[in-house]
Amino acid sequence: MRLAELSRHSGVSVASIKYYIREGLLEPGRLVAATQAEYDEHHLRRLRLIRALIGVRGLSVGTTRELLGALSEHPQDVHRVLGLALGAIRPADEGREDTAECADVDALVEEMGWQVHRAAPARADLAETLGTLRRLGALGDWRALLPYAELAERTAVLDLDALDGAEDPLELAERAVLLTVLLEPALLALRRLAQEHESARRYTGG
Amino acid sequence: MRLAELSRHSGVSVASIKYYIREGLLEPGRLVAATQAEYDEHHLRRLRLIRALIGVRGLSVGTTRELLGALSEHPQDVHRVLGLALGAIRPADEGREDTAECADVDALVEEMGWQVHRAAPARADLAETLGTLRRLGALGDWRALLPYAELAERTAVLDLDALDGAEDPLELAERAVLLTVLLEPALLALRRLAQEHESARRYTGG
Repeated sequence: MRLAELSRHSGVSVASIKYYIREGLLEPGRLVAATQAEYDEHHLRRLRLIRALIGVRGLSVGTTRELLGALSEHPQDVHRVLGLALGAIRPADEGREDTAECADVDALVEEMGWQVHRAAPARADLAETLGTLRRLGALGDWRALLPYAELAERTAVLDLDALDGAEDPLELAERAVLLTVLLEPALLALRRLAQEHESARRYTGG
Repeated sequence: MRLAELSRHSGVSVASIKYYIREGLLEPGRLVAATQAEYDEHHLRRLRLIRALIGVRGLSVGTTRELLGALSEHPQDVHRVLGLALGAIRPADEGREDTAECADVDALVEEMGWQVHRAAPARADLAETLGTLRRLGALGDWRALLPYAELAERTAVLDLDALDGAEDPLELAERAVLLTVLLEPALLALRRLAQEHESARRYTGG
């Protein structure tokens, strides 16, 4: 397909596509005439992934370039592709193992039997939130989170089921980013609606 | 208790307490000497709620004043107190019924049998996210959200259980805000950790 078509199919402007090519995120098209290049499905998949990483995950062009490089190293390792796409592992620190200093999070992860990297950013996020909840007196003990963790486990099963059947690693990575990041506000909104319903059920006549 | 003690127990600075009194959010203390006022448990509870509404929900002083007024009208109506605290109903538009124009959200709410206000902001949030997911081709049909809605329902049961036993409407409202808003990043972090674990379970040896 031509550049204009690639733009239409991917939802990325022609100017942005040219910029991604200059920055080495996207390979140039195959030249079919002096000023005309031809693009294929691989370009489209890669462009969709770039759009998800930059537009949805909010990564910089530099980090996206690094991540695309890391993804191409072991494209058949689904666990690694998902970890990179979702930021559980980062291209630059795969060798390094940060330790998130939070005994509460460690205890919760161990109690759940979860296999997660020491350096997973979600550990630090959880530790920070637990700290705030504690400081404001809104949470007694990390064990209060265990029922929530069990529901998170069931949510993750739905998430991974939805990613099943992706055709190639680029598509898998793109869909993982979209479904994980974009579903976040939807899940929070569903919880608010369900809270209102549960409150009505408990405290009103109908 | 004295002003300094009220500040220490509530975690709100003396300057902020004086400001809230000037703005009519908090009643002045009982004068026990020309320059000395005495504060009680009611002041403390109200101050904690103000801190939650302004500091955690991010409301303005004006909106908080309105909301505190609305809360004091029917303090025994738990469903109404929770709705106000969490923003499902707003003090200003209790009479008005906005219609969030989204057939998908309506269909989902109906399918779940949820009792929620037409004007609940979570409806509009959900509609917006569904629009984005659709536009990016990441979600086929709203029915794909039904299993997530069922898990949200179970989450809401945990939330309401945790609020059970609040001693008065001010405490109930404060705890509802803290647990709902502050748990949001924790729930998202738990989902990320659970995704990594589920991915490891499915796609790696151990």
